[in-house]
Amino acid sequence: MVSDEIERLIMLLAKLPGLGPRSARRAVLHLIGKRESLAQPLAKALAEAAANIKTCATCGNFDTTDPCRLCADPGRDGDVICVVEAVVDLWALERTASYKGRYHVLGGTLSALDGVGPEDLSIPALVKRVAEGGVKEVILALSATVDGQTTAHYIADRLADAGRGVQVTELAHGVPVGGELDYLDDGTLSAALKARRPV
Amino acid sequence: MVSDEIERLIMLLAKLPGLGPRSARRAVLHLIGKRESLAQPLAKALAEAAANIKTCATCGNFDTTDPCRLCADPGRDGDVICVVEAVVDLWALERTASYKGRYHVLGGTLSALDGVGPEDLSIPALVKRVAEGGVKEVILALSATVDGQTTAHYIADRLADAGRGVQVTELAHGVPVGGELDYLDDGTLSAALKARRPV
Repeated sequence: MVSDEIERLIMLLAKLPGLGPRSARRAVLHLIGKRESLAQPLAKALAEAAANIKTCATCGNFDTTDPCRLCADPGRDGDVICVVEAVVDLWALERTASYKGRYHVLGGTLSALDGVGPEDLSIPALVKRVAEGGVKEVILALSATVDGQTTAHYIADRLADAGRGVQVTELAHGVPVGGELDYLDDGTLSAALKARRPV
Repeated sequence: MVSDEIERLIMLLAKLPGLGPRSARRAVLHLIGKRESLAQPLAKALAEAAANIKTCATCGNFDTTDPCRLCADPGRDGDVICVVEAVVDLWALERTASYKGRYHVLGGTLSALDGVGPEDLSIPALVKRVAEGGVKEVILALSATVDGQTTAHYIADRLADAGRGVQVTELAHGVPVGGELDYLDDGTLSAALKARRPV
């Protein structure tokens, strides 16, 4: 019923996270309705990004340069490496503007169920970075899920084995800022209670 | 913090319906992570669609040909025109495979609030199509909203003025197939009651 061009566009857009076949169809109609103001610029921007964006060989961030601007920035603290699962987490931390060290993007978490082992992630590269020296602290900013915490423990063990006395830390668990106690899950509340601090 | 290419891509993707800045960011990271299997084919498909998809001068459908394959199909009934707000509605009706007439895409609904008048929609073109003769029935398949129903009434009046004795019908209101009475809004339920039929 619809042309192959449109079918193909729907199929490709439906692969994006957050878009199913139905919303992809709506998006495609929106794009075709705005051929010149949206579809063409988007096609160009996509082609340029696909051609120019590289994965930083050091930290795994996406940028037009390799090493990326975060790894190349002499103003950032090389003593600290913050380990994140994905680039989206790196961006989230950068938006806080409260971290000035380096990053290391794992590319996921260990998962026995999905068959993801240490060699599928950039864990060996992290161990190598730390073994090269100059790193004092590794912050594990991983998800507070079973897979995230398993990965954190595994990395902590590997870094302890590698020696060099690097300090391994993790993000604090607790009450989200602005959060109401009543709406918090029991796990978070008991974690916040255990980690209570003098005022 | 992120490169201009990425910023631009996020900004453009966030303009799609159903994607906000946050989900656009996730989509862009997904695209960059799959440069060759997704970003490049999508850029190509978008550019091709933008270049090749035309708006049918007769009915307003999107297709690679003008007239579109629905208007050009001699197997479809030229006696009946189904008036829809947008191409997405035309597609929805086509998926039902229970309509074999022609279409007319309005491009929206009349809206005093948004300043949309009859000349902003393809209402004059519809009146012209009907005045040219050969049409026996016009089905108004518009939204059951205030704007949709206002538009339907306006079109029915215009077609009555144009004479030619064309029959103007609208979609039935009632209980959705598979719907439970308990979850229906009062308006639908009372419309279904009013339009009750012998079993």
